Amino acid sequence: MTISQQTGKISSTEWVTDSNGNFAISIRLKGERLFHEVSPFQTVEVFDTHDRGKMLTIDRMVMCTEADEAAYHEMIAHVPMLTHHGVKDVLVIGAGDGGTIRELVRHQGIEAITMVEIDEAVVRASKQFLPTISSALEHPKLNLLIDDGIKFVKNANESSYDLVIIDSSDPVGPSEGLFTLEFYQDVYRCLRPGGVITVQSESPIFHQKAFVDLNQCLKQIFGNDSVHCYLVFIPMYPTGMWSLTYCSKQGVHPVENLDCEKAKQFVKEHKLRYYNAEIHKAAFALPEFIREMTS
Amino acid sequence: MTISQQTGKISSTEWVTDSNGNFAISIRLKGERLFHEVSPFQTVEVFDTHDRGKMLTIDRMVMCTEADEAAYHEMIAHVPMLTHHGVKDVLVIGAGDGGTIRELVRHQGIEAITMVEIDEAVVRASKQFLPTISSALEHPKLNLLIDDGIKFVKNANESSYDLVIIDSSDPVGPSEGLFTLEFYQDVYRCLRPGGVITVQSESPIFHQKAFVDLNQCLKQIFGNDSVHCYLVFIPMYPTGMWSLTYCSKQGVHPVENLDCEKAKQFVKEHKLRYYNAEIHKAAFALPEFIREMTS
Repeated sequence: MTISQQTGKISSTEWVTDSNGNFAISIRLKGERLFHEVSPFQTVEVFDTHDRGKMLTIDRMVMCTEADEAAYHEMIAHVPMLTHHGVKDVLVIGAGDGGTIRELVRHQGIEAITMVEIDEAVVRASKQFLPTISSALEHPKLNLLIDDGIKFVKNANESSYDLVIIDSSDPVGPSEGLFTLEFYQDVYRCLRPGGVITVQSESPIFHQKAFVDLNQCLKQIFGNDSVHCYLVFIPMYPTGMWSLTYCSKQGVHPVENLDCEKAKQFVKEHKLRYYNAEIHKAAFALPEFIREMTS
Repeated sequence: MTISQQTGKISSTEWVTDSNGNFAISIRLKGERLFHEVSPFQTVEVFDTHDRGKMLTIDRMVMCTEADEAAYHEMIAHVPMLTHHGVKDVLVIGAGDGGTIRELVRHQGIEAITMVEIDEAVVRASKQFLPTISSALEHPKLNLLIDDGIKFVKNANESSYDLVIIDSSDPVGPSEGLFTLEFYQDVYRCLRPGGVITVQSESPIFHQKAFVDLNQCLKQIFGNDSVHCYLVFIPMYPTGMWSLTYCSKQGVHPVENLDCEKAKQFVKEHKLRYYNAEIHKAAFALPEFIREMTS
């Protein structure tokens, strides 16, 4: 069954469409739009969908759906957390929906999380309409700042964090500066020796240039052998193939340093939906054409 | 940038849309439709796209694009071929575009391939407009039959093939019978001892019921421990997350029996675009929610 055979079009009132001009995904909506605000930075909306639960979009780009968000949030948080075995202080840039924080606070060893989100409208919308995702945004270990992440890392003290997570939207609008050499120089500086980062690094196909450029940028700063791209299936992101990138300041290898037994126990205890020890290792295996893009 | 902001719709004349009613992908077209035929079985079309090369659709479901087809064809052919080390006779059901045959004939050890495709219009369209995909459809080792695959395996001799590949379209129209217990009983019967099969087993999300049902069906026939689902990123299929399933008649394990050195050499020699030894192993790691669906 195809939409075009039925109606000849994808209607913008019944469907939300996320497109790069040549490829698009569309998700069918249910009922009225739940949230809509043109913030100083972007347009923030929450919709209900037919079979993926509630959905957050920024400038009509899909940020997350309730049904599918676990893949992204578990993989951006647990891959570094189950690799670096002494994380106490975490800095998170972006992550306004709260999903990354929800995953981080599962780890008892973390003492403090500083989260810097530029747009309070994203936080407000998520708290109101995505309670299962934003559930840890009031957590006692969390210091949530509404501020510019670029400015924040520029002013951050040297060697302050064991883990930095860049959980940004796509490189248009306020997130553009999160894809620059200068920003990652600051991130590197505020990492402790042995510290690690994970970065939302776009789709190798839908945003090929951003993906390749960011990979090169990270290698300039962390060195070729300390930058490891990994892939996650995110069905409600265009092309379904999304990359995250893990980098370490002193060669903590993301697969060799995985504690498999600890990971298995953790997955079971927290009833994770996507992450497991095998997926942790498998995600770093890259198809030939992506190896080429990142070599 | 979103289509809906620009024009308010995805037009059916400029875009091809593949949808299950709640989720859709759309691929932007370039120029005139290259092929269109309503065969006795289905509507077969070839389009040119803006950045994915030429595209084959059946009943407006995306079958392959030139830019992305390697993932599917390499993974359905090389996973069994680099696991089972003595394949001489191969049966392929479907595969009208020829991509699977192109990958199979790279393996010198194969003596004969019988391919049974129900719709000669698919073969004709592919030969004419997708020459890089259909390039081996005249290969001397290939016996191409235009016939009903279901009937063919019913009448096939017992223990005739080392490898059977079910490279079908989705379970609507002529492919529906390729998703039944009866069909797989016949496939099992015509496999040699130690023989293996790989099957196009749909998207765990876009076609969840078909995926789960087929997995159960295969387990009934091959036994729980001999059915191994694996995942492939196929960006131009809806949700981008596609499954193939490997089954063996006598417990030839798809990861334990991989000859890594041979695989590495093979990838290099043939300049593969997706498959490599690491991806072979990684593809069998399943996210927690898919483990649950298949347990």
